Amino acid sequence: MSKDSVKLLNFWPSMFGLRVRYALDLKGVSYDYQEESLSNKSKELLEANPIYTKIPVLIHNGKPICESLVIIDYIDSVWPGSHKLLPEDPYEKAVARFWADFGDRKLFDAGSRLRRAMGEEHKKAGEDFKWALMKIDEALGTIAPGKPFFGGDAMNFADVALAPFICWFKGYQKVGGFVLPGPEEWPNLYKWVDAVNSVDAIKKSTPSPDKVAEFAEVLRKRVLGAA
Amino acid sequence: MSKDSVKLLNFWPSMFGLRVRYALDLKGVSYDYQEESLSNKSKELLEANPIYTKIPVLIHNGKPICESLVIIDYIDSVWPGSHKLLPEDPYEKAVARFWADFGDRKLFDAGSRLRRAMGEEHKKAGEDFKWALMKIDEALGTIAPGKPFFGGDAMNFADVALAPFICWFKGYQKVGGFVLPGPEEWPNLYKWVDAVNSVDAIKKSTPSPDKVAEFAEVLRKRVLGAA
Repeated sequence: MSKDSVKLLNFWPSMFGLRVRYALDLKGVSYDYQEESLSNKSKELLEANPIYTKIPVLIHNGKPICESLVIIDYIDSVWPGSHKLLPEDPYEKAVARFWADFGDRKLFDAGSRLRRAMGEEHKKAGEDFKWALMKIDEALGTIAPGKPFFGGDAMNFADVALAPFICWFKGYQKVGGFVLPGPEEWPNLYKWVDAVNSVDAIKKSTPSPDKVAEFAEVLRKRVLGAA
Repeated sequence: MSKDSVKLLNFWPSMFGLRVRYALDLKGVSYDYQEESLSNKSKELLEANPIYTKIPVLIHNGKPICESLVIIDYIDSVWPGSHKLLPEDPYEKAVARFWADFGDRKLFDAGSRLRRAMGEEHKKAGEDFKWALMKIDEALGTIAPGKPFFGGDAMNFADVALAPFICWFKGYQKVGGFVLPGPEEWPNLYKWVDAVNSVDAIKKSTPSPDKVAEFAEVLRKRVLGAA
């Protein structure tokens, strides 16, 4: 492993980039980190991801891998190690992939609309965001009853894909103008949040929720200012 | 394999459903087929996919698997057989996943807008659709130079994910009001189209492009009628 060159092109608040950091840290893979400016992307980023010109990109021994779920799948194949993220069982693997994808499809989508939309659409985004979290709470109770993670006692592919949203909760509430239900209503979700937040590999790279919320409010103000 | 119960809930023109049929047929897995009415979904569909209430759903020995890319990944794990869809090599696997995802992200998205959007947005959808096909042409030339498929001499995960769009080309052109560039401009794409269309497993389940185009025009007329 010592001969491997591993580099991550990233932008610090990105939940997609955080996924990749979490996966690398859970595997104990060391990597070079390159912070990108989204308004002035590096030549390396533009060349490594010509289709989307977006972070995160993992460059492994000169080869670029793009799209966060593809990257964490790649990391799991190259460094299976002691902490496998994708279950061996095909059905359990499909369930993990389904919930990882759910994060992009529902949680990220509603979160984007919370930052961008106005009026009724903004209100709807808040409802969609809460619905998505409620579904995650239910899923945790069904898939891993009594256990903290989608992966049971350890984080799996779904956990790694969804965990980066946690540090955004505060920011989403601020720009959404709502307060999320608490642990009485979503016991599985909050148990999961506590478990994720206590994993060393997660603590290592997660930005402070205050800093993320500040960033989210800057984005929101830009939208409001332009409206 | 004879004891397996395999059932597909589908709607015939769906490219997502077609992917699943292609994967099952390439593997030689026989299955029961249930056509769903999107305006009157079966209780079985609603219970099997409570999150999205959408086809396709594969029900394997009573367990539902949802989301087409998750399903074809599942099929490849359960029935690896002689025709493996996902490459063993992690980088090649990542490339196949990237292009499969590209189909959803760019081709399907632009296609949806071709059916739904008006005016400038409709024009933009046509440009985006052609851009996506151009990128697929380029990718084929780079990933598998001289070979017909993303998978080289045989269809892989990316081929199965993208192949269902072929029978929609005619419909997309009709509702988009444009003519796609030909083989002179996109030689790799058309070589791929011919190769895909000559695979027995693909011929078996693909609806006629005329029938798909008719369906696309009905959808488009509904949008125009409501505008």
